[in-house]
Amino acid sequence: MQQPGYGWVSLTTDYGHQDGFVAACHGVLARIAPHARTLDVTHTVPAQAITVAATVLAHTVNYLPEAVHLVVVDPGVGTDRRGVVVDTDRGTLVGPDNGVLIPAADALGGARAAFELTDSRWWLPAVSRTFHGRDIFAPVAAWLARGTDPAETGPPLDLDELRRPPEPHRHVDGDSVHAEVITIDHFGNLQLAVDAADVRWPVGQWLHIHTDQAVIRAQRVATFADVADQQPLVLADSAGALAVAVNGGSAAEKLATGRGRILRIEPAEPPTEPQGA
Amino acid sequence: MQQPGYGWVSLTTDYGHQDGFVAACHGVLARIAPHARTLDVTHTVPAQAITVAATVLAHTVNYLPEAVHLVVVDPGVGTDRRGVVVDTDRGTLVGPDNGVLIPAADALGGARAAFELTDSRWWLPAVSRTFHGRDIFAPVAAWLARGTDPAETGPPLDLDELRRPPEPHRHVDGDSVHAEVITIDHFGNLQLAVDAADVRWPVGQWLHIHTDQAVIRAQRVATFADVADQQPLVLADSAGALAVAVNGGSAAEKLATGRGRILRIEPAEPPTEPQGA
Amino acid sequence: MQQPGYGWVSLTTDYGHQDGFVAACHGVLARIAPHARTLDVTHTVPAQAITVAATVLAHTVNYLPEAVHLVVVDPGVGTDRRGVVVDTDRGTLVGPDNGVLIPAADALGGARAAFELTDSRWWLPAVSRTFHGRDIFAPVAAWLARGTDPAETGPPLDLDELRRPPEPHRHVDGDSVHAEVITIDHFGNLQLAVDAADVRWPVGQWLHIHTDQAVIRAQRVATFADVADQQPLVLADSAGALAVAVNGGSAAEKLATGRGRILRIEPAEPPTEPQGA
Repeated sequence: MQQPGYGWVSLTTDYGHQDGFVAACHGVLARIAPHARTLDVTHTVPAQAITVAATVLAHTVNYLPEAVHLVVVDPGVGTDRRGVVVDTDRGTLVGPDNGVLIPAADALGGARAAFELTDSRWWLPAVSRTFHGRDIFAPVAAWLARGTDPAETGPPLDLDELRRPPEPHRHVDGDSVHAEVITIDHFGNLQLAVDAADVRWPVGQWLHIHTDQAVIRAQRVATFADVADQQPLVLADSAGALAVAVNGGSAAEKLATGRGRILRIEPAEPPTEPQGA
Repeated sequence: MQQPGYGWVSLTTDYGHQDGFVAACHGVLARIAPHARTLDVTHTVPAQAITVAATVLAHTVNYLPEAVHLVVVDPGVGTDRRGVVVDTDRGTLVGPDNGVLIPAADALGGARAAFELTDSRWWLPAVSRTFHGRDIFAPVAAWLARGTDPAETGPPLDLDELRRPPEPHRHVDGDSVHAEVITIDHFGNLQLAVDAADVRWPVGQWLHIHTDQAVIRAQRVATFADVADQQPLVLADSAGALAVAVNGGSAAEKLATGRGRILRIEPAEPPTEPQGA
Repeated sequence: MQQPGYGWVSLTTDYGHQDGFVAACHGVLARIAPHARTLDVTHTVPAQAITVAATVLAHTVNYLPEAVHLVVVDPGVGTDRRGVVVDTDRGTLVGPDNGVLIPAADALGGARAAFELTDSRWWLPAVSRTFHGRDIFAPVAAWLARGTDPAETGPPLDLDELRRPPEPHRHVDGDSVHAEVITIDHFGNLQLAVDAADVRWPVGQWLHIHTDQAVIRAQRVATFADVADQQPLVLADSAGALAVAVNGGSAAEKLATGRGRILRIEPAEPPTEPQGA
C-alpha cells in the first residue's frame, strides 16, 4: 500500500524575492514537514495576476514530481473569500478559491474533490489578516505532505462551486486569431491565449500581426533560428501555445506591447523583397 | 542528549542573483556540511542596506527551522571590521559586526554569547579581500552546522561590544507618527519603523499621510480589501509593523516615496464624500 | 570503489524567474534522479549571453560540490547545433555546443572527453523545438547523475571539434589595458576580461579609466573601503579578475557604461588635490 502524503511541495506566488515572505513559507513547511522537499515554480508573478500564475503552473505541473502545489496569488486575503484544497489523481493543490488552482488541476486530470479550509487545527496558532500564505496555506500544504487526508481540512465543496479563473480574450475564426497576451518571458516572447494546435497555418505561412499601433509581417516557423537575426516570428511554444517572438531579440519591445493586450494575426502575402536584408 | 550542530543554514545577502556569488556560498556549505539543508531568506537586499537585511531577517526568523543564519551585507569587507558569531538559545548567527545580526538575535530571545571570527581553521585556505561571504562566513556557518562550538571560532566578545544597527527614524507622540519607510515589498507596500501595537488608532480611524510633497487621506483597516480598489490604507502588516498600502495597487507609486523617506501620519476627519466613487 | 554518478546537479541558464522554465528543469531532474540535490548558479544571465554564463560558471564551479553542471544559454535551439556532454576529472557538463561549457571545463582541469547528444533514450519522449533545456539537457543531466556513462549519450567528439566561446576583447600592453566589460554584478561593479595578475600596477597606483565619453581617475587598491565613500577604484575581484568599482556606489552608473563596452586603463599621476574632499 502506498504511503499517504507527498515527498514534494511546489510553490507559486506573487511575493517577489525582496522580502522574507517566500522564506517564511519555506520555513513553515520545513518545521511541519521536514521530510518534504520544495520546488519553487515562480515567485515573480506580477502582483495579483491570477491568470499568469494559473497559466504558468498549468504549463509546468506535469513536469514536476507528484506534489502538494501551494499557490498564493490572493487579492482577497483577509476577506471572506474561501481557502480551498483541490484534490486530483496526480497531486493536491492548496490556495485561495479565486480560480488560480483550476487550470493546474485540469492539467493533472481534473479535480476529483475539493474542501473549504475551515479546520484551524492545520493552521498556525496566530493567523494574520494579510499573510495567509504563511499562516494558513503553507501549514495546510505541510500537513497534506505529511499525509493528512484532504477531507480533514474542512467540509467538501461541490466542484461546480469552485470559482473559475478569469477567462482571457481569445477568438479563432478560420485563419484569423484575436488573442490576449497571457505571459511574457525573460526573452520578451509573447505567449497568447490560444493553443497552436487550434490554428491551421502551415509552417512557412506569412502572417500580419496587428497591435494597437502597428502591423508587423512575420512567418509561422518551428523555432527561433528559422528566421534571420532580429526578425519576428510566430511559433508553437514549449507549452503548445501560440507565441510571437523575435529571433535574438524581444517581441515585447519590438511590438511595444504587453500582458493583457490583444493581438490580431491574419494570413498575409509573402514579401516581395527579402526580409532582414 | 541533543546532537550539536544544525540541520539548516539560512542565507540573507545583498548579492543579487545575476552572478555566482550566492551559488559559491551554497557550494561552500555543500562541500563542508553536506548534511545541512539551506533556506534562502533573500539575496536582493538593496546594496549595503544593513537595516533592510536586519529587518527582513528579524521578521522572518521565528518562522524558520532552528538554523545557523548566515547574513552578509558588508560594506566594510576587507577592512578591520570584525566578523562575529552571535549565539542565541534558538539559533546561531554569523556575519559582519555591523549590527546586521542584532535584530534577528533579539527576535530569537537575545544574544547569549558572541565571538570574534579570528580562528582561520574554519575559513577557506585562500581568503579574498572582497568576498568574505564565500571565504569566511559561509565556511564558518558550515562548521557550526557540523557542530563546531561557537567558542572555537575566536575569542569571546562582551555583548555590549557588538555594534548596533543604524537606528531608523521613528517618533510616536500621542496619535501622531513620524516614521521612516524601512522596506518596500513586491506589491509596493510601505513598511514603517513603528510597531502597529504602539499606535492607538482604532480600526476605521481616518488618517492623513504626509509625504514631502502631498497629503493623502487613508483609513486604518484590518486588511487590503477593506477599502475600495486603488484606495490607500494603513494596517498592521504580517510582521506587526505599521504599513501603508493601496488595495490592488502600489503605495510606493501612489505616494511617490521610497525607502529611507519619512512619513507623518495623523488622525483626520472622515471624508464628507464617499471615497473611490 | 566509488559509486558512479553524482549527488549534485548545478543549473546555469538565461531563463529568468518569471516563468516555469527553471521549475520544469528542476522537476525533470527530480523525477528522473530523485537522489540528486540541485544548486542554482544563476538563471538571470542576460538573454543569450554565452560569455556571461561561461564566465560566471567558470568563476564559481570550483566552489561547488562535484556535480553534473547543466548550462543552457542556447540561441541556436532547434537548429542543427549540437548538444554535448563534456567530461572532466572533477565533474561533467551538459549543454549546447556553442562554447558555453568550455571555460568551466577548463576550470575543472580541462575536458577529457566529449560526446554528441544523439541517443534519445535519455531524453523526454516528446521533444519540443524550443525548450531543449527541459526536454534533452535536463533529462540527460539527471541520467548522468544516476550513473549513466557519458559515453552512452552519443558518439565521441574530438575535443578540438568543440566550439569555443566568443573571445572577449582584451589587450594588455605594458601598463596599458584595453578590455571588455564581461559582467556587471548587483553592486554595479564592472568585471573586465583581464586577470588582475596579468597587470603590474602596484597597490596605490593612480590610473586613468577611459570610457567612450569620459576619463575618470581612480586608484588601484585591495578592497572597496580603501578609498573614500563614492570614489572609484580598481581592484582584483574575488574571481581574480581586474574590476572597476565605486566604494558604496555603482561603477556602472558612475561610468555610464555596460556589458560589452571597452575600457582603457592607464597609469596616471597622483592627484594634486585630495579626492572626495
